[in-house]
Amino acid sequence: MKRQARVHRLAMSSPDDVSGLTGGIDPDAVVAVIGKTEGNGCVNDFTRAFAVRALTDALPRPGITMVMSGGTEGALSPHMLVLEAGMGAGASPALAIGTARTPALPPEGLGSAAQVQIVAEGVRAAMADAGITDPGQVHFVQIKCPLLTAGRVAEAEARGQSAATRDTLKSMGLSRGASALGVALALEEITAGEVGDLSLWSARASTSAGIELLDHEIVVLGMSDGWCGDLVVDHAVMADQIDIVPVRDCLDRLGFAPGVQIGRDEQPRLVALLAKAEAGSTGTLRGYRHTMLEDSDISSTRHARGFVGGALAAMVGHGQIYVSGGAEHQGPDGGGPVAIIARRKGTS
Amino acid sequence: MKRQARVHRLAMSSPDDVSGLTGGIDPDAVVAVIGKTEGNGCVNDFTRAFAVRALTDALPRPGITMVMSGGTEGALSPHMLVLEAGMGAGASPALAIGTARTPALPPEGLGSAAQVQIVAEGVRAAMADAGITDPGQVHFVQIKCPLLTAGRVAEAEARGQSAATRDTLKSMGLSRGASALGVALALEEITAGEVGDLSLWSARASTSAGIELLDHEIVVLGMSDGWCGDLVVDHAVMADQIDIVPVRDCLDRLGFAPGVQIGRDEQPRLVALLAKAEAGSTGTLRGYRHTMLEDSDISSTRHARGFVGGALAAMVGHGQIYVSGGAEHQGPDGGGPVAIIARRKGTS
Amino acid sequence: MKRQARVHRLAMSSPDDVSGLTGGIDPDAVVAVIGKTEGNGCVNDFTRAFAVRALTDALPRPGITMVMSGGTEGALSPHMLVLEAGMGAGASPALAIGTARTPALPPEGLGSAAQVQIVAEGVRAAMADAGITDPGQVHFVQIKCPLLTAGRVAEAEARGQSAATRDTLKSMGLSRGASALGVALALEEITAGEVGDLSLWSARASTSAGIELLDHEIVVLGMSDGWCGDLVVDHAVMADQIDIVPVRDCLDRLGFAPGVQIGRDEQPRLVALLAKAEAGSTGTLRGYRHTMLEDSDISSTRHARGFVGGALAAMVGHGQIYVSGGAEHQGPDGGGPVAIIARRKGTS
Amino acid sequence: MKRQARVHRLAMSSPDDVSGLTGGIDPDAVVAVIGKTEGNGCVNDFTRAFAVRALTDALPRPGITMVMSGGTEGALSPHMLVLEAGMGAGASPALAIGTARTPALPPEGLGSAAQVQIVAEGVRAAMADAGITDPGQVHFVQIKCPLLTAGRVAEAEARGQSAATRDTLKSMGLSRGASALGVALALEEITAGEVGDLSLWSARASTSAGIELLDHEIVVLGMSDGWCGDLVVDHAVMADQIDIVPVRDCLDRLGFAPGVQIGRDEQPRLVALLAKAEAGSTGTLRGYRHTMLEDSDISSTRHARGFVGGALAAMVGHGQIYVSGGAEHQGPDGGGPVAIIARRKGTS
Repeated sequence: MKRQARVHRLAMSSPDDVSGLTGGIDPDAVVAVIGKTEGNGCVNDFTRAFAVRALTDALPRPGITMVMSGGTEGALSPHMLVLEAGMGAGASPALAIGTARTPALPPEGLGSAAQVQIVAEGVRAAMADAGITDPGQVHFVQIKCPLLTAGRVAEAEARGQSAATRDTLKSMGLSRGASALGVALALEEITAGEVGDLSLWSARASTSAGIELLDHEIVVLGMSDGWCGDLVVDHAVMADQIDIVPVRDCLDRLGFAPGVQIGRDEQPRLVALLAKAEAGSTGTLRGYRHTMLEDSDISSTRHARGFVGGALAAMVGHGQIYVSGGAEHQGPDGGGPVAIIARRKGTS
Repeated sequence: MKRQARVHRLAMSSPDDVSGLTGGIDPDAVVAVIGKTEGNGCVNDFTRAFAVRALTDALPRPGITMVMSGGTEGALSPHMLVLEAGMGAGASPALAIGTARTPALPPEGLGSAAQVQIVAEGVRAAMADAGITDPGQVHFVQIKCPLLTAGRVAEAEARGQSAATRDTLKSMGLSRGASALGVALALEEITAGEVGDLSLWSARASTSAGIELLDHEIVVLGMSDGWCGDLVVDHAVMADQIDIVPVRDCLDRLGFAPGVQIGRDEQPRLVALLAKAEAGSTGTLRGYRHTMLEDSDISSTRHARGFVGGALAAMVGHGQIYVSGGAEHQGPDGGGPVAIIARRKGTS
Repeated sequence: MKRQARVHRLAMSSPDDVSGLTGGIDPDAVVAVIGKTEGNGCVNDFTRAFAVRALTDALPRPGITMVMSGGTEGALSPHMLVLEAGMGAGASPALAIGTARTPALPPEGLGSAAQVQIVAEGVRAAMADAGITDPGQVHFVQIKCPLLTAGRVAEAEARGQSAATRDTLKSMGLSRGASALGVALALEEITAGEVGDLSLWSARASTSAGIELLDHEIVVLGMSDGWCGDLVVDHAVMADQIDIVPVRDCLDRLGFAPGVQIGRDEQPRLVALLAKAEAGSTGTLRGYRHTMLEDSDISSTRHARGFVGGALAAMVGHGQIYVSGGAEHQGPDGGGPVAIIARRKGTS
Repeated sequence: MKRQARVHRLAMSSPDDVSGLTGGIDPDAVVAVIGKTEGNGCVNDFTRAFAVRALTDALPRPGITMVMSGGTEGALSPHMLVLEAGMGAGASPALAIGTARTPALPPEGLGSAAQVQIVAEGVRAAMADAGITDPGQVHFVQIKCPLLTAGRVAEAEARGQSAATRDTLKSMGLSRGASALGVALALEEITAGEVGDLSLWSARASTSAGIELLDHEIVVLGMSDGWCGDLVVDHAVMADQIDIVPVRDCLDRLGFAPGVQIGRDEQPRLVALLAKAEAGSTGTLRGYRHTMLEDSDISSTRHARGFVGGALAAMVGHGQIYVSGGAEHQGPDGGGPVAIIARRKGTS
């Protein structure tokens, strides 16, 4: 008997729909829930907290990491991934899951080298929890990180400290970026780095900021000999919003039949796709101007999720995939990491 | 010497940017301009009219069809296709272009069988203008059709007539739908049909409603022995928002090398891609719920353009493609027609 | 000892903020909560349900009517009004509160004469609960009514019935309108009426549609000799979005000092202002065109709440007022009812 | 014979509607056009440029200042004010109009003390043009100022200079703020000042940034003995979004009958109302939280225009008023200047 990961992908009919949790799920084995809700994914998106409240009522055991990402633009479909860590027998190495929480970050530390360090240590702890020692075995690190509020900035200032910004929306980007650099540091993708230097990035970090925490919740997905079972994970990096060739290469490595779209017969094997998307800083895609950064009616993160979501959904044959916006230091400028969890060929 | 079509794809830095018209374009040969501008593509999108005003100043010769479609969501890129019909020598059959205008439609006729008929006759006239007799040689029909305004409804009522709706936005859909059925009738895809019967559709119609006309402007793109040159056109039909396999089959027929994305070396051969996109009526994509129809912050047409735009841009390797929203009777429910203009293999 | 109404106006720092319920509130006396949350107030506004979930956890006793209205545009401020019905001594007549629920309405009845009747009977029951026999003593009737979903329409069709519309957003308007006519019928403002006849309306109805119920929750506010205490209620009707003179007349009747804005010293006396707002059907305000109905980026209900909210907030001197959108049959076309709850002069 | 100002307030049925210019207007006397168009008033608002293009075609004489402000939220009505400076006889002092343009501002100067100085000199030139020597006679200064684009920033950097920001939207605020301080300096409201110090502001500045210029266009409105006629101007300052008492005091000074709203009989006397509005930096209005700064679906400038527009439209009795968003250094934080042009009592 070894540890064995199970992943359930559940449709959500509304942000507070937890009806999918009944049947086939062992509440005691659940270690994390990662999901997409149908809000705007920006500052005033309450669908994330609404979902977490319903999930917490349904899964009241403490210590379960819950990361909800808002925004299901286009035909992206609200859903959640329920991650279990149980015991079983089967092939190894297999998908390994580890979680960790960091100490609380004081407001003045947000976006700083201190946050990078604290997250790097947290990622190492989550790797240890997963039994992964080689950073090369890690394929995806999902982090929920804090943001600044007016109250938090004031609290820091009352102690004679100053925060990096007073702009709540901007603080989300700074926190996501510092957290991603923390991942890059722990995974030895960089040796040191400054938030804002866009040449530095992690190929495996996915970070989301939330108002409901002061520390960091971390989920590491990797491959480990200490785990067994049908599930495996691999990853790719998109260099821009339509860089699908590396994603297709990843599908090749996972044994999916060639083609522009996964066929119906193979879809049960594709358990989950998780990706980050962003407009990038240049205002162009391969030399052609786009308008995501100048649209004052729709946030660029909404544009990016819908567009990249279309590119990726077309590859896998459906829209029940996790595409999250705001990819600071997560993949190169304009691009983002993609992780795929699949059943081994011949097992579904 | 035969007739020869030329197509120029020009970037637009703003809706009124016509600077691309200088150099390489013969104003006397221009018969149509089809473009994407960066508005919301809905009722209060003035970027279309702004572009047409600038184009009309730059190309003052009467009779040039100008169809601007609003909405460049995601990394879609504002651009225009300038279609010339000149003379030349070269291979046949080749891309043929025909245009026509219908008589004015009284307001009470909008969305009715009368509109279907008047458009069908207009399409036949445009086919004749292109020298196409076989409907099977037609690959794309772009139509600009009228819409209802409060004033037009009142004018009809003053004559004792009644209009199909008082809702301006709804009238756009009715007009697009009736125009698409007119195309289907002319192309012998259907023998008769009622607006609203979603089982009836054209595989080659692309219709947009505009406030600036009371008749219909029609552009037919097809293949004809009477035309020569490097350019060819083909089409596909997407059955839903991610149905990219038929599009890839179309690329195969046009001789593009296999793969999930057209390589840089082949991109000069892909002159233009034109597609229609919509959310569809079911609220789902392949069984998974999407939220396009319930989003009161972003119109479903904007969602659909961005998402389908991502799927198609990923295939061709850039976002300078024409993706238009609102596909009533244009392809099946939730899907839409796609046309590709390419240079013959070995010619670019 | 007579019945005595108490009204607490509580700020909300987020949709699930119920922290204001501690201190000074008798949970056993609470009969209704009416509030404004910061969503878009349209179909995909989950802040209402999030607030109700938090309220239900905080006030678990069954039978408390909870009506949350989404949309705090401009400087409108999220807040809730907690209505208590206790016992006390003091002046009469005074503010009286009554509540009722109707039987469930089958989907095919939505927007029909049957809904008008069922609501009229419910309003009469709520009046009886409040001890009000004279319809002239009623100043405000708040109703939460059902809407149609795809599932509900299908259920009706499975029984061979048909629903008034398949459009969820439109069903909200039909339900609000029929409910308002039910109020008008019970209050003897009309003797009969058809949904859609804009000449028929109630001067005292405020109706909101919600997905979470199939029946109607009704709160009646009026003046009654059977109630005592400091609180009184009066109402006005705005004929259009800026018709503030009748509201000022109402303030005059309530004894507020003359002026364009209530002074700081008098603000404790103004307990609550509740109003309905809408764009109206004409597209104009006093002959000048507005653009609320043509804006495809912002719903007209959001425009109307912000604009009318500005006019009313300027009168009372702050933005913690209840302004709800969608005023079908609630006041004349483009206008809406306004109710003011105040402390008697000399009592605060 | 003295100089005489005339002001025409013309409805616009669309951004390019200049049909109101026919009849009663002397094209040779027009010195400025100030208007509201129905775009979003933010970065991608092309209705301003579309209007200016139509106006320039209709009024081709060079030197006419054209300032279009986007955003007619709520029941604000698209319109333009056409300002003429002719000759006539009548009472003095009267409304005086002066215009000026500054030299071009290099990109690195935007938001700096240099911009403050250059604008101050321009305002003095416009005052001289109007024949006003006493800054106390100036009641409103409308300025159109430049903004930064990626290209302009790059051009500065190529010369070894750096711009204040790379964020286009942010550059609009910096330019508006520096221009407002320039007005304050010229009008001797401040003696020196730094952009960003919110304690410094002008009670009479109204500034809008536009992409179409590199210098500043300035219109000064004041009272002068050198001008004659029926028109007068006065101003007020709102301390926050609902501070209408000073506006009412201004109406009192202009002789309007007391009341919460100007009656129909007096409306011909109220020629124009021009105001600035903003959300302010505190996130509250008189102690109550608002949500304008956290709404990721609607820009805070749109919220502020609609809400303040409602407060002011309710005072004057219609929505054909000029309310512009983004009031950096224009009035105190959260407030803004208001100017009213009226006919002398007894003259309309």
